[in-house]
Amino acid sequence: MNLAELKHTIAHKKNFLCVGLDTDLEKIPSFLNEYDDPAFEFNRRIIDATRDFCVSYKINTAFYEDKGTDGWETLLRTEAYIGNAHFKIADAKRGDIGNTSDRYAKAFFEEAGFDAVTVAPYMGHDSISPFLKYENKYAIMLALTSNPGADDFQLQKLENGQYLFEKVVATSQHWEGSERLMYVTGATRPEYLQKIRALAPETFLLVPGVGAQGGSLSEVVKHGKTNAIGLLINASRSIIYASNGEDFAEKAGEEAKRLAEEMTFYF
Amino acid sequence: MNLAELKHTIAHKKNFLCVGLDTDLEKIPSFLNEYDDPAFEFNRRIIDATRDFCVSYKINTAFYEDKGTDGWETLLRTEAYIGNAHFKIADAKRGDIGNTSDRYAKAFFEEAGFDAVTVAPYMGHDSISPFLKYENKYAIMLALTSNPGADDFQLQKLENGQYLFEKVVATSQHWEGSERLMYVTGATRPEYLQKIRALAPETFLLVPGVGAQGGSLSEVVKHGKTNAIGLLINASRSIIYASNGEDFAEKAGEEAKRLAEEMTFYF
Repeated sequence: MNLAELKHTIAHKKNFLCVGLDTDLEKIPSFLNEYDDPAFEFNRRIIDATRDFCVSYKINTAFYEDKGTDGWETLLRTEAYIGNAHFKIADAKRGDIGNTSDRYAKAFFEEAGFDAVTVAPYMGHDSISPFLKYENKYAIMLALTSNPGADDFQLQKLENGQYLFEKVVATSQHWEGSERLMYVTGATRPEYLQKIRALAPETFLLVPGVGAQGGSLSEVVKHGKTNAIGLLINASRSIIYASNGEDFAEKAGEEAKRLAEEMTFYF
Repeated sequence: MNLAELKHTIAHKKNFLCVGLDTDLEKIPSFLNEYDDPAFEFNRRIIDATRDFCVSYKINTAFYEDKGTDGWETLLRTEAYIGNAHFKIADAKRGDIGNTSDRYAKAFFEEAGFDAVTVAPYMGHDSISPFLKYENKYAIMLALTSNPGADDFQLQKLENGQYLFEKVVATSQHWEGSERLMYVTGATRPEYLQKIRALAPETFLLVPGVGAQGGSLSEVVKHGKTNAIGLLINASRSIIYASNGEDFAEKAGEEAKRLAEEMTFYF
């Protein structure tokens, strides 16, 4: 799914929800352990229960990579099961020297069929450019994250008065292929969304932190919405772990539907 | 291998070389393709040819991850083949929210038996702390990298006059478990090594950029050496791709030996 299709899907569904598949074998219902691939079985049922109520899925690759080869297999099966009607994000937070980023871009865009990969900015332009070379593929760069450690560096002020996260956005907007760049901006700091919008008025923002981390949807919309919405609100734990029983998928569907209904007000 | 053992090995071998296994199937000699696992066969021969001339190996995980499940298997086989007489670094540049970094720490320190993992600082303390909780395991944080994009953010000056990379070092030195922290500092910018040494006088530095990227060993030693050496000089392409023929391992051994002999002068 490319950006035009994502915008169309958002407008058509009146929805900008991204469901995060942070699938933790220690947290999924224990009855799933009788399956060959419990994590895939969990994801399959979550996807079936939520696909009508979201426009995107985000797969947190760490939860698969720590299972070694089996985990990568589960990740690929999940990505394939989602299909092509949703915007598929590999939440991998990669960023390395150019020849290494080339490998990651190939892994996520070619070996797997993701539409976007999250990337970390610290190493600068040549660590990101390999992700921006693929037509209809997107790099979602960390700008201001929702965790406590965001204060350590992202909210440091530079000599010119900008916060580091503003510099990251301002600088990267001039990179070749920046029309295929999006930013991660945590919902727990909605007041800073305006600063990002001042620098990137139309760029899509992936917004974690609504739900389990306490961010407010209405505040995010107030400060971050564009004419084409321009937001993907990610919720992971509040949806996929809504219940720990036999009804986990049903409850996940209900929570996604609840968020989806709240979103219709903003169209 | 823990830090005390690393220091002992360095002193005993009079060597502080780290060989980087950035093993690219498109660059290894084509006759290896007859093996079931060409990348492992390449690594096995490189390791046999170089183990006497280095104290550490660094495995660039991207070159394995882009092969999916097979790649992760090759990575694990390589890590096991190195054994316990070398300091084993997973060059993965991870950094994510706490529960995700937990997964990565588990993958690299428990599933695989690496001694250290490279991490990215942008998300701050709670993205790194999961890596600092393991006794005798180490997190090697990006400070000042050797690529052109380092200028974009790492060399930005903050309000207090520090460069961002100095702030990264200064702040992280106060984190719990910081005695298990090391830093990546590129050899292509040796003049900044003094600034890092001013903030972290004894901390080990992993120094890429000698060799293919043009950094000078003598300059790095001049600005960065401590009483216990405190440096791991990484060379990847200049060693492992010293020849593309049947003699690739022999030539790799010769290049490692050449660097090793140069290093003995600094003891």
